[in-house]
Amino acid sequence: MTSLDDALALVRTVPDFPSAGVLFRDLNPLFASAPAFRAVIDEMAAQLPADVTVIAAVEARGFLLGAALAVTTGLSLIPIRKPGKLPAVADRVDYALEYGKATLELPADVLPAGAQVAVVDDVLATGGTVDATCQLVERAGATVSVVSVVLELGALGGRDRLAGRKLHTLQTI
Amino acid sequence: MTSLDDALALVRTVPDFPSAGVLFRDLNPLFASAPAFRAVIDEMAAQLPADVTVIAAVEARGFLLGAALAVTTGLSLIPIRKPGKLPAVADRVDYALEYGKATLELPADVLPAGAQVAVVDDVLATGGTVDATCQLVERAGATVSVVSVVLELGALGGRDRLAGRKLHTLQTI
Repeated sequence: MTSLDDALALVRTVPDFPSAGVLFRDLNPLFASAPAFRAVIDEMAAQLPADVTVIAAVEARGFLLGAALAVTTGLSLIPIRKPGKLPAVADRVDYALEYGKATLELPADVLPAGAQVAVVDDVLATGGTVDATCQLVERAGATVSVVSVVLELGALGGRDRLAGRKLHTLQTI
Repeated sequence: MTSLDDALALVRTVPDFPSAGVLFRDLNPLFASAPAFRAVIDEMAAQLPADVTVIAAVEARGFLLGAALAVTTGLSLIPIRKPGKLPAVADRVDYALEYGKATLELPADVLPAGAQVAVVDDVLATGGTVDATCQLVERAGATVSVVSVVLELGALGGRDRLAGRKLHTLQTI
């Protein structure tokens, strides 16, 4: 067994990526360790509220966590996509992020109104990406039951941007 | 139980996306069905050669399948990334694809020389993306044990491009 602490210790901090002044959290060494990845997914699964029916996974690193979580828990998986990837789009949200602007899209015909959704990503920084995903979920008539991330970068204020939505994080830095 | 055939029947074919003349295979309805996703991952897991130690998942839809497969089988997960996403790059390959050009990158310090790798993606079309991933694996001193995809589009000749590497596909269209 790899403990959750051992798993999280594999996250590498890289200064000035993707731009000067940003401390990037690189989870690739964690993904490459099967016991560490298992420990993280098991803990995220244990923290999921019992009412969750859908995992909404944010492109791209959120796909790695969200897909593993969905198959482990037996929940529906919905990828939230960057623009130009979906042949049929239900809705899109434009937003500002730490280093630039971005758009996210919800695929058509996959998220039922009334679904209870866990929004999954790797890192909560300023919260722009996760908030945009939550907006897509809520505008579709579904509910954000929880936002689940591996790391919360506390100084960047992402939690405040979630406006009262429930947040689960394995570690706050 | 959802049969593999029932799962694959959820794949939607969309004409003229992302460009005129291309028949796009949309797996989102399959991902959104937990039993269908489970059936696909279980079959991919059953087909993996016993010597595989690493899942190399191709950004972005390959992440969904590769991560689920890695957590299910207890194998190491390495995301193969589009440019600009990695703070430390071991190697990169430029290649042509069905509709444009692209680059893929291998993260630094995660793929051991001598590893036996399963390259995982959703669809094998012309084979450019998968071949580029295989090149990254092989140039790092690891071996492509198998290429594992959900769908092979037979008319596009991707299998020929794999130059004798072993291919597992759940369905050939």
